[in-house]
Amino acid sequence: MDGNKKNVRLLVEYDGTAYHGFQTQEDPHLPTIQSKLEEAVWRICQEKVRVTGSGRTDAGTHALGQVINFQTSSRIPIDKLPKALNSALPRDIRIQEAEYVQTDFHACYDAVAKTYQYVIDNQPTPSVFRRCYAYHVPHDLDTAKMQKAAAALVGTHDFASFRTSGSSARTSVRTVFQLDVIASGSSITITIKADGFLYNMVRNIVGTLVEVGRGKRQPGCVADILKARDRTKAGPTAPAHGLYLLEVYYDDERLFGNA
Amino acid sequence: MDGNKKNVRLLVEYDGTAYHGFQTQEDPHLPTIQSKLEEAVWRICQEKVRVTGSGRTDAGTHALGQVINFQTSSRIPIDKLPKALNSALPRDIRIQEAEYVQTDFHACYDAVAKTYQYVIDNQPTPSVFRRCYAYHVPHDLDTAKMQKAAAALVGTHDFASFRTSGSSARTSVRTVFQLDVIASGSSITITIKADGFLYNMVRNIVGTLVEVGRGKRQPGCVADILKARDRTKAGPTAPAHGLYLLEVYYDDERLFGNA
Repeated sequence: MDGNKKNVRLLVEYDGTAYHGFQTQEDPHLPTIQSKLEEAVWRICQEKVRVTGSGRTDAGTHALGQVINFQTSSRIPIDKLPKALNSALPRDIRIQEAEYVQTDFHACYDAVAKTYQYVIDNQPTPSVFRRCYAYHVPHDLDTAKMQKAAAALVGTHDFASFRTSGSSARTSVRTVFQLDVIASGSSITITIKADGFLYNMVRNIVGTLVEVGRGKRQPGCVADILKARDRTKAGPTAPAHGLYLLEVYYDDERLFGNA
Repeated sequence: MDGNKKNVRLLVEYDGTAYHGFQTQEDPHLPTIQSKLEEAVWRICQEKVRVTGSGRTDAGTHALGQVINFQTSSRIPIDKLPKALNSALPRDIRIQEAEYVQTDFHACYDAVAKTYQYVIDNQPTPSVFRRCYAYHVPHDLDTAKMQKAAAALVGTHDFASFRTSGSSARTSVRTVFQLDVIASGSSITITIKADGFLYNMVRNIVGTLVEVGRGKRQPGCVADILKARDRTKAGPTAPAHGLYLLEVYYDDERLFGNA
């Protein structure tokens, strides 16, 4: 670790509509959140950095509270950094906060939990204002049944049935701390907090809950789906544009040390 | 009036971000809400129609409840028309309702009142999700003072000071029935209902209320501004993208006749 460098942690909000996901792709010309952040650091701090995100988000998926970190020698005061970087970022990416953290803090490895939110636009005709920000489901959804199914997913389980293949995680056991299904007006918001998420896990859970809400499956199906450890037993993958990375949690000790 | 034709009234929602306003421009290649609606009727009903809106909206301004009407010989059942037209419309324009009205109903001339809403994103860093849907004001706004100023605009007044020139209206006297300023979280929503609106009237009122909220003007200024009948005495024109046409009101008699 270069002793002159400081480790900066940024809280980032973005509208994922125009991007090919968070992570820079093999084709470096495809716009990604990561590439835009690195370009902004280059323009403002004159440094070529590699930013580390708490995790990837898919193309079209949004974030209200993505966390990233990078090492910098820049002398821009940390409280001026959000405004400076925002001046170099497109309007659909905004730095909300910046702070120094201890030198070995890592936005991905040190995350102890995350909360995602998934928004459903549940009315016959989709809202034009939510066409990129919520999954339009025109059918009647029984949210009481969805809540019942959701409750059965809370706890420590093997979520292999809710993992899209291609995931490299060693284990598919995760602990879901919270899974709420809240209806308000024409919106249904599903909030899920877990110690970690498998590839497409939220979208596969939502796709299954929607089938329960439509009456295609019974709430009790969830226990069988978990037991099967087989992706084909769960519902379809809900679209990416209804999904928001809401919050990433860290131990204060890993952020700021014991001091 | 062609006896075989029926008069159709549509309730239309649109995201104005991508359009050069409601009304078709001199340059017919500029995308407008009107041109997209007429194209959709052409594709679905095979008719060249001229749609009449309740009024224009500016480039970037949105609508939750724009009302339009047009004469048609189409035999598509009225309850199927929204879905049929929506299949031919871009995703940022949606027909919410369709109904037959009496043959001489006119969406503009027959409107007896309208409600507009204006949304302010009032926080230090703008929300990425509202960059096209709310006016970002980073300064502290005193909503109690804004409410006080707003209250002084309710009633029948000469609103010449709040009219951007270029307006062709014969009189600048209008009656404001309601003008609410409601703060909720980081949003401030201004709702204004009147029997009619002069060109840019809502945006000029909002620009003035924001100056009151920032402390640049006192709430009592409104009486002097009205009295002056001089556009230069009021505040600046707030941007178009915070504005929504919420509802247009008609007498049931003009819609459906006395029968």
